[in-house]
Amino acid sequence: MGSIPQISDWKVLAASKREAVAKKIPKQWRLSPSVLSNISSTSPISVLDIPRSCGLLSTQELTLTEDYDATALVEAMAKGEIKSYDVTLAFCKRAAIAQQLVNCCTEIMFDEALARAKECDDYLEREGKTMGRLHGLPISLKDSFNIKGVQTTIGYVSFIAHPPAASNSNLVDLLFKQGAVFYVKTNIPQSMMTADSDNNVFGRTLNPNKLTLTAGGSTGGEGALLKLRGSPLGIATDIAGSIRIPSLCNGVLSFKPTASRIPFGGKVPPGRLGSPSPILPVIGPEGHSVRDLELFMKTAIDSDPWECDEHTLAVPWRRVEVPKRPLRFGLIRGDPKRPLHPPVERALHSAATALKEAGHSLVLLDEKIPSLWDTAILAWKFFLLDPKKTPVQYVNASGEPWVSSIKTASFSSLAGWEATMDELFDMNVERSKILKVYHDLYVENQLDAILMPGYQATAVPHDTYGLPIYTVLQNLLNVSAPSYSGKIPLIWPSVPFRNPAVPPGIEAVG
Amino acid sequence: MGSIPQISDWKVLAASKREAVAKKIPKQWRLSPSVLSNISSTSPISVLDIPRSCGLLSTQELTLTEDYDATALVEAMAKGEIKSYDVTLAFCKRAAIAQQLVNCCTEIMFDEALARAKECDDYLEREGKTMGRLHGLPISLKDSFNIKGVQTTIGYVSFIAHPPAASNSNLVDLLFKQGAVFYVKTNIPQSMMTADSDNNVFGRTLNPNKLTLTAGGSTGGEGALLKLRGSPLGIATDIAGSIRIPSLCNGVLSFKPTASRIPFGGKVPPGRLGSPSPILPVIGPEGHSVRDLELFMKTAIDSDPWECDEHTLAVPWRRVEVPKRPLRFGLIRGDPKRPLHPPVERALHSAATALKEAGHSLVLLDEKIPSLWDTAILAWKFFLLDPKKTPVQYVNASGEPWVSSIKTASFSSLAGWEATMDELFDMNVERSKILKVYHDLYVENQLDAILMPGYQATAVPHDTYGLPIYTVLQNLLNVSAPSYSGKIPLIWPSVPFRNPAVPPGIEAVG
Repeated sequence: MGSIPQISDWKVLAASKREAVAKKIPKQWRLSPSVLSNISSTSPISVLDIPRSCGLLSTQELTLTEDYDATALVEAMAKGEIKSYDVTLAFCKRAAIAQQLVNCCTEIMFDEALARAKECDDYLEREGKTMGRLHGLPISLKDSFNIKGVQTTIGYVSFIAHPPAASNSNLVDLLFKQGAVFYVKTNIPQSMMTADSDNNVFGRTLNPNKLTLTAGGSTGGEGALLKLRGSPLGIATDIAGSIRIPSLCNGVLSFKPTASRIPFGGKVPPGRLGSPSPILPVIGPEGHSVRDLELFMKTAIDSDPWECDEHTLAVPWRRVEVPKRPLRFGLIRGDPKRPLHPPVERALHSAATALKEAGHSLVLLDEKIPSLWDTAILAWKFFLLDPKKTPVQYVNASGEPWVSSIKTASFSSLAGWEATMDELFDMNVERSKILKVYHDLYVENQLDAILMPGYQATAVPHDTYGLPIYTVLQNLLNVSAPSYSGKIPLIWPSVPFRNPAVPPGIEAVG
Repeated sequence: MGSIPQISDWKVLAASKREAVAKKIPKQWRLSPSVLSNISSTSPISVLDIPRSCGLLSTQELTLTEDYDATALVEAMAKGEIKSYDVTLAFCKRAAIAQQLVNCCTEIMFDEALARAKECDDYLEREGKTMGRLHGLPISLKDSFNIKGVQTTIGYVSFIAHPPAASNSNLVDLLFKQGAVFYVKTNIPQSMMTADSDNNVFGRTLNPNKLTLTAGGSTGGEGALLKLRGSPLGIATDIAGSIRIPSLCNGVLSFKPTASRIPFGGKVPPGRLGSPSPILPVIGPEGHSVRDLELFMKTAIDSDPWECDEHTLAVPWRRVEVPKRPLRFGLIRGDPKRPLHPPVERALHSAATALKEAGHSLVLLDEKIPSLWDTAILAWKFFLLDPKKTPVQYVNASGEPWVSSIKTASFSSLAGWEATMDELFDMNVERSKILKVYHDLYVENQLDAILMPGYQATAVPHDTYGLPIYTVLQNLLNVSAPSYSGKIPLIWPSVPFRNPAVPPGIEAVG
């Protein structure tokens, strides 16, 4: 990456990167100064109405971005009822608006996307068939995915010196083959290990529901973009909650599958490759409907992803039928170290009550599970195994400072902790014990799913989210976990552990 | 385990354990002194004919043990054509004979087995249906499996002080529910990390084809017992070749599945639990027919093993259809550091020729793969991660010496090597690179399987087997691998890596 820049340089570098991105928003798509004057991280307003009120979108563009989910768009494009070009243009414009409101994008690829959309339309007309199941669909991606010819800085100033990606991530290749159109990449936190999508390259993503609140992380740019309907479908990653936290904070749907289902290879990692941690990062969708989450999962798995990625399980898609009998749910009401705020307690209570009233039963698990706090500490130890502390090197390489939320996203008891090989053996045994507790609770109580909070609160002010003890549990256990903001806080189906073959399965409680 | 015995004690302890086992062979099943006088590890004779010639087995017992495979036995018992009691008695007697010839058993459970067989027969008569898919079938097990009430020493003298197992291994529970009858556990090497099934508790298992040759390991007792038709089906484990080496040395069939398919929990490990090694031990069958290997795999996986074991993948059984087109095979002809002996070279050549003549094609991979020797060294490093060197502690606890073959089963370049966390990251990256090479060879050449030697030679003299560089490859890659002694040396189907859902699939070349 050339010589290490001087400390005074990093701001210049970052500003020039931001400026290059900003230039890719056409002048005619820019919001008026009067709208922009209210936009800041200290402005306690909702911007949800602005895409509709700002006047930049035509009636058809409002319809395409608001009244269709991804499944409906794909169906209508396949039938020739609507053009990919028009759909893509609508989402490019709306993403440009979202970017000006909540700073959710990193790389902008509007020109390439419109050319690609034209290609899709021409293909359909010429061949009389679609390119694939995602024919013509604009899809937004977390910044860490590589798209050939586009830079991947993942918010490290030192990565601004990197050349554009020489090849696509494995999943990007797969989605391209199915006809996807990529038009933006989205913002993430420095190091990807905090829940505030803030970094020194692109700055902070704001929550469109209220700009003073966090958009969550690490796939926070997606959450904010989706909430503003600037994307029909977003691709996220998750090792401690990074798919689900933005979903909960912004109010969109998401699904975290088990590990090794969706091809993970060819991305830019925020840390060192080769970690012996048993907690693997996973890719999953953020979106607008349950069927859209399934559209993504089923398309990826039906595409034989194991052909393009040597770490992906060769397990076909299968649909698990919802039992006809009443269902049995475990219920976890939270950890005393992170007690639930009233709105979350109410949502959890409403969900539990609704399930009971529908004839299902609930088993309270609070007293039967290991401390969620201690479980999260164990997970964090697995995240801290690298003796080279690679993310620190990436940050120090440019002289950029740490973002504010980093200090809230670590356990004080782990300050200075260094892993030994001996302790790693004990940590794995400890993880197995926890796995067994949950496994036995599932089996002995014949549970179909567990219902629990995804976080103690709704979206909180910037840099106060802290540690995601409720979401990291499902990563440590390697279970799948959909997240429904506003409906049911977080639920994980009865997928026995390390189960790679479970479909979203969320119909069970949808 | 109480106080550490004095060095002079270990031989007494071991002798008393052996004596207790020997006493469980009824007097009327003992071979004549004239037969026994020829039995020793330096006697270059085959004992394959002795079960038939010794006169201890009735004609029906010879028929039951020789003319049926496990599948045929189960079918005939289910129809009531033969009784489990008679089948079990025949295999108990034949195992007793095998034990006297090749020292293949560790624990003898004839009384319990006959009572259980009676229970199976009574159940069938009373209920008009079988207990399960393995109704009444005698199954032999490697010593490391726990059976409630039976000791599990795994050949460590220090483990003689352990009480009998308090519960069954998860797989034992599962097989019991399917109607299995357990009647013997079988011999293994001290530490399970050499290919000679020799330890200071039970002594050495001999090869029934020629007593001066190794029976292989670590599941060598099974291989020898099966070859003498003293078992219809044996359950083995494998982390570097331990299912397949005895199969190759003795001449029986075997199958090593991918990791986490067959429930592994509740066994007695030879080393420390919690290793961060990506190479996981697996359970698989040794047997007499391809359909028997499938009987075991399908029964285990159709039994929802993820319900009884939190580490087992919840992936249902599925049958992969053999393509109607000609197949494509990769061919690996060996590594220069362990060149093939003429019989193995001939077998490999015959197999390749037969495939070509049948219209299939072969792609030579010798120059395209990383050094098999270096790959094995990497695997061995993963086996040596434990800084506590737990197996050494288990051996030293009694003062017993190391068995002779241990020194042939280590890489001199790894003497004194200790893992660091930093190197472990690099080792994982190195493993990923190797995985990618094979993955890409499979995909680019559209291979259905790879054909390669399982070892450089046929069975070798005791304590000279050395390092299993050909078999450990499939463990490092986590691919499934059937092994056919005498037919095709070793073949692994085109199961994309870490594929848990592949059935034996060996019909493709059967």
